[in-house]
Amino acid sequence: MSLQNDLILRAARGEETERYPVWLMRQAGRILTEYRAVRGALSGFKELVETPELAAEVTIQPVDILGVDAAIIFSDILVVPEAMGLEYQMVEQKGPWFEETIRTESELSKVDFDIDVEDRLSYVLEAIKITNKSLDGRVPLIGFAGAPWTIFCYMTEGQGSKTFSVARKILYTNPILAHRLLDAITNVTIKYLKAQVKAGAHMLQLFDSWAGILGPEQYATFGLHYLKKIADAVNEVPLTLFSKGAHHSYSELAALNCNTIGVDWQIDMKKARLLVGEDRTLQGNLDPSALYASHKDVENVTKNMLKSFENKRHIVNLGHGVYPDVDPEKVKTFIQTVKNFER
Amino acid sequence: MSLQNDLILRAARGEETERYPVWLMRQAGRILTEYRAVRGALSGFKELVETPELAAEVTIQPVDILGVDAAIIFSDILVVPEAMGLEYQMVEQKGPWFEETIRTESELSKVDFDIDVEDRLSYVLEAIKITNKSLDGRVPLIGFAGAPWTIFCYMTEGQGSKTFSVARKILYTNPILAHRLLDAITNVTIKYLKAQVKAGAHMLQLFDSWAGILGPEQYATFGLHYLKKIADAVNEVPLTLFSKGAHHSYSELAALNCNTIGVDWQIDMKKARLLVGEDRTLQGNLDPSALYASHKDVENVTKNMLKSFENKRHIVNLGHGVYPDVDPEKVKTFIQTVKNFER
Repeated sequence: MSLQNDLILRAARGEETERYPVWLMRQAGRILTEYRAVRGALSGFKELVETPELAAEVTIQPVDILGVDAAIIFSDILVVPEAMGLEYQMVEQKGPWFEETIRTESELSKVDFDIDVEDRLSYVLEAIKITNKSLDGRVPLIGFAGAPWTIFCYMTEGQGSKTFSVARKILYTNPILAHRLLDAITNVTIKYLKAQVKAGAHMLQLFDSWAGILGPEQYATFGLHYLKKIADAVNEVPLTLFSKGAHHSYSELAALNCNTIGVDWQIDMKKARLLVGEDRTLQGNLDPSALYASHKDVENVTKNMLKSFENKRHIVNLGHGVYPDVDPEKVKTFIQTVKNFER
Repeated sequence: MSLQNDLILRAARGEETERYPVWLMRQAGRILTEYRAVRGALSGFKELVETPELAAEVTIQPVDILGVDAAIIFSDILVVPEAMGLEYQMVEQKGPWFEETIRTESELSKVDFDIDVEDRLSYVLEAIKITNKSLDGRVPLIGFAGAPWTIFCYMTEGQGSKTFSVARKILYTNPILAHRLLDAITNVTIKYLKAQVKAGAHMLQLFDSWAGILGPEQYATFGLHYLKKIADAVNEVPLTLFSKGAHHSYSELAALNCNTIGVDWQIDMKKARLLVGEDRTLQGNLDPSALYASHKDVENVTKNMLKSFENKRHIVNLGHGVYPDVDPEKVKTFIQTVKNFER
């Protein structure tokens, strides 16, 4: 099926685009009343993730309602550890919670190293197929996974944490265990991303949400090393690496076999460009809380950001997921400002 | 009273020292069984903070037990908003919680802009006096306060947060309110720090724990601007600025009227030195989770860090507070490695 809008793919590959493409992390989610209506009728977040028709429906909502240039499949990074054998729950107001964790060598037996992703994650692949059918080529569909380091954090810690000190403890006390688990996650993730492409994903993003809690040396060893393996193995479609908070490693990230580097709002885009160089597309990086401002101010801060891009390779996004209590009308102002901007 | 060990003061001023001084953030706290014994007999954390004799006792514990080169007064950064009129509770397993918050102009009336710190924070000042009496000049005593931006976060958000999106929203929707509150916090903090010096603090540290959630531009406006006011006003003793996560602003921080820049573990110390220059002392920055390693490994990572200092101006510390479940014997290995290191 040919795409009517392939701006984001061309921007990722560094080709000419008539304007900057724009989408938002977490665009399919609680900011939309239409999402809350679907979600409210269900038993919980996981039922939505695991029901392909409904996951497809909320994936498409922001395309219809907000006018973004890409859809991103509605899912969760934790479907991978679950497929490997660690079931998770999404606890209201608290976040993810795992009954079982991996903290010792013997506990590695709790997870399957070699799984059939087409089987265990069929619900995501099915959602991708349904989404593309409904989108009918209007915009590209982004697939995604968590980066191995971030998935490792959850599989060892068992829940969210300010410090992930349990996960980081293992890096010092049992690096062999850490590498074995990271390697297993990496192998499953490669298969999973390839399956997403086969199902119809037009581009891919890896979310390394907890990259920023490691120092540069440990991130090289336990983070970048595995991102490289994935980037080298998955070549079918453009790949975005989003290592939140890891400004120290932007140059090293940019040296990987990827197209786009995700940029959070805590770094000036010009500095990010200096670190990344001219051969990669940058994605980001408006402060998510800027969308709390007045329409006029949203327009102004967005324009200032766009001017700072100096006509280089950019995909517009926030520096992190949109906050759930943001007014969708402000999101529309953000998107419209990008669309109206004359390069 | 003359000090028998003034290493840390000399290091802060950039004077020659025979070895690097060493202390740990949160050294007076849950890592020590002796602390837990004192704390366990009380109704809660705040009773300890507000009872000068006991606060002094736990302040001195790490000097006796661990052999650190400085004591830091046992207290909390939230005593300042409380003294201004917003009472806080420390909820077990959850952290700080404020019944009242400031989110609108009219809510500013909930706080007192001009308070007598000698009266309202007498319990901290009294604890400083008792501590110095008991220390009898063995090591210097560090006083501290939260940086205005971080205190603003708690006064507006009312509790800890991963994003502090309520606090950051105000920066976009009502910057005038933000500046009025930040200014009030700054004025009280200046008086409070001066009172700590008068009571006997030999050096001071400002903790900007949430610096890293702002981008460089907003941190300049809402963070550094107020740190500068404090640094210019408080000149009596050496001052340390610890803006966690704000690597983007290290050069600007170093330009302020301070002696030492606190460095977290997410930046390489050589890069920090490049940003800060040669005219300031750096404090940090071992990864707190490195203390989970074996004694041999603790020694090795500590030595590697010390070598990277290249004999420049340094005070040794962790990159953040010591984690409560770390074995105090590992802390001793860390401290002993610093003391034995030949420059």
